[in-house]
Amino acid sequence: MMNTACKISTFNPISQFFFFTSNPSKSHLGIHQRQVALKSGRACCSSSWNLSCSSRATTVDDAKKTLVIGLGADSGCGKTTFMRRLTSVFGGKAEYLKNGNPDSNTLVSDTTTVICLDDYHLLDREGRKLNGLTALHPKANNFDLMYEQINLLKQGVSVEKPIYNHSTGCLDPPEIIHPPKILIVEGLHPMYDPRVRELLDFSIYLDISDDVKFAWKIQRDMKERGHSLESIVASIKTRKPDFDAFIEPQKQYADAVIQVLPSNLVPNNEDEKKFLKVRLIMKEGIKYFDPVYLFDEGSTISWIPCGRKLTCSYPGIKFAYTPDTYYNNEVSVLEMDGQFDRLHELMYVESNLSNLSTKFYGEATGQMLKNGDFPGSNNGTGLFQTILGLKIRDIHEHIMSEKNNRPTSDITKFLQPAYA
Amino acid sequence: MMNTACKISTFNPISQFFFFTSNPSKSHLGIHQRQVALKSGRACCSSSWNLSCSSRATTVDDAKKTLVIGLGADSGCGKTTFMRRLTSVFGGKAEYLKNGNPDSNTLVSDTTTVICLDDYHLLDREGRKLNGLTALHPKANNFDLMYEQINLLKQGVSVEKPIYNHSTGCLDPPEIIHPPKILIVEGLHPMYDPRVRELLDFSIYLDISDDVKFAWKIQRDMKERGHSLESIVASIKTRKPDFDAFIEPQKQYADAVIQVLPSNLVPNNEDEKKFLKVRLIMKEGIKYFDPVYLFDEGSTISWIPCGRKLTCSYPGIKFAYTPDTYYNNEVSVLEMDGQFDRLHELMYVESNLSNLSTKFYGEATGQMLKNGDFPGSNNGTGLFQTILGLKIRDIHEHIMSEKNNRPTSDITKFLQPAYA
Repeated sequence: MMNTACKISTFNPISQFFFFTSNPSKSHLGIHQRQVALKSGRACCSSSWNLSCSSRATTVDDAKKTLVIGLGADSGCGKTTFMRRLTSVFGGKAEYLKNGNPDSNTLVSDTTTVICLDDYHLLDREGRKLNGLTALHPKANNFDLMYEQINLLKQGVSVEKPIYNHSTGCLDPPEIIHPPKILIVEGLHPMYDPRVRELLDFSIYLDISDDVKFAWKIQRDMKERGHSLESIVASIKTRKPDFDAFIEPQKQYADAVIQVLPSNLVPNNEDEKKFLKVRLIMKEGIKYFDPVYLFDEGSTISWIPCGRKLTCSYPGIKFAYTPDTYYNNEVSVLEMDGQFDRLHELMYVESNLSNLSTKFYGEATGQMLKNGDFPGSNNGTGLFQTILGLKIRDIHEHIMSEKNNRPTSDITKFLQPAYA
Repeated sequence: MMNTACKISTFNPISQFFFFTSNPSKSHLGIHQRQVALKSGRACCSSSWNLSCSSRATTVDDAKKTLVIGLGADSGCGKTTFMRRLTSVFGGKAEYLKNGNPDSNTLVSDTTTVICLDDYHLLDREGRKLNGLTALHPKANNFDLMYEQINLLKQGVSVEKPIYNHSTGCLDPPEIIHPPKILIVEGLHPMYDPRVRELLDFSIYLDISDDVKFAWKIQRDMKERGHSLESIVASIKTRKPDFDAFIEPQKQYADAVIQVLPSNLVPNNEDEKKFLKVRLIMKEGIKYFDPVYLFDEGSTISWIPCGRKLTCSYPGIKFAYTPDTYYNNEVSVLEMDGQFDRLHELMYVESNLSNLSTKFYGEATGQMLKNGDFPGSNNGTGLFQTILGLKIRDIHEHIMSEKNNRPTSDITKFLQPAYA
């Protein structure tokens, strides 16, 4: 069966060289891809232009090296909203990369660049169909290239990154990505490959429970896009084995997990999981990442702020905080069940949280209000995304400060491929 | 049937006059007792010496007037321990009244006097038996005299208070009680009579759940005193209707209730209710009494301090705090389940409680340690008794300060019997 959906890439590499490396031949990205035995359509996606990807060194200044954040989740789990909140904390407005492919997945702001790891799909939609693979399967993704390019960006080297076109399902010609201050790599597999995982300065996993995911898909695909219930159920069913095998296990590696569950405040929680219980699971012992806590660090707390001083409407808000273990790691868990009605509730909550890494009193609330039209702004998803944005800014500042206080390193040691 | 157990009192009143009253005849305590139709033995208890009780004014200085605290509970519920903790907070050591009846029930320290309301029994043990009344029944108690004498003490007037001899079950000749700085009236009925209730500047009820009360009685009466299980069960059964009718309803009037329940931390809580859940129910809106709170005033909190910073042994400690309603009153409830093992646990807890009315950091812990050999020192009964001691000291100081800042009142207005 031929892949007729995608045209062969017409992209012509113009800057196909590699800078400052002890073994140029090894750095040729096409050569060092893992060899996978896959049936390809017209080879438009899985071979031709991957070989054409190139990299350029734009800077070798150690102090300017890029902080790399990984964000893992299934599709349709709110990664885009999260990215917008993150970039908002850094002060800029995120926009899709201009002057390139209008179907580019890359968001860029003054300080951050968000790349979508779908761009490292090894197979286009047709190719996946031919091989009977979902996009979730590692064989459908190019981890060698993913590692190579993230590593280069981290060292301050521009790369020409492929584009997976979500509209057409094709692999489009690459776009040039310059190393930002903060690189966020979001997608299905940021923590799957150990080499990529090693590059991450901080990693987050969005863990949406099956119940909630189903409710969200119903809302988006059925009510907004007119899909049938049967097709949604079938799609979930098809993806489930690969999701369980390759995506979900990554959460054990994440420094922070945002877990989204149905609310416990509402009996049976019908009404399409409108009310959510969201948990922020924060790994202990991560440098520059001091977990947020409620009232008393290290103890177990539950807190219903609605009472004499704060009147909340049904079903109210309940917070919890506890130390715990998660995949054999010591973690702190902050939990919010229910939703906010008004500003003063949010301020009241912020005033009782510690280690928020805000620069001034009320900054978290300010961020939430500024992005009040984003989905989840009245519940724990918005709050915890905002908090993680503040924490990442803090980590970035600490690392920059640390780097500025030491002599510039020899760039060559960073450019040695770790897997060579 | 004759009462042969008690001798007729040989007490000869020597100071039978009443000072500063507009109607001397009305103040004669024997006359103004409520008339009760009761069968008496040789009248030794219920009539003869009641008529002989007299009062002396020792001071009329308004600023020195006595603060009156009521403490209600069933017998065997730890009132004596509580009294020792209260007097300890005030700095003195409580001792039984010297130079009088060795069976006196009155505890005296530098600042406080604790009188036992059993001394206002109208009927001795034999008389109660004859009339088929328990000591819990209002008819077995002399509320007129109770009111009259507490009122006088409150105005700074000494009284000659009867003594109920718990050893013999007789009403012994009275003892002279001088007005202290703080008068604590403890017993079965401090809040039963509305006139007496009105005299209380602060009132406390010890509410021991049936389960715990039974376990305590087994411990004391069976294991320590050799009573049979059957006799204990029979005694509880006999007292229960009057307890439910006349004693327990008083808790609705208390400014603070200490409620003692079996622990929820231990499955089924066997082992004779060794582990307790204790709740301190504090009425809102009481002048000079700001309820203690945990972390966030007016919200609902649960807190397990045992965790990373504090390691507690089985079954651990759990605190809770919540606003609530109690007999249609707004209250704040502080709850402690489980028990302390070591000093640093106590300090840690104290550091997270607010409105404790301590004079220095760690004072509550210091008090608990000082009286570490008292029953309940490792659980919520000891902690909450200590806290109420601190609160009462605070109330006393506020009231004294208030009185010192206003002109001395005309004493006569205080000596008008309120029920005349």
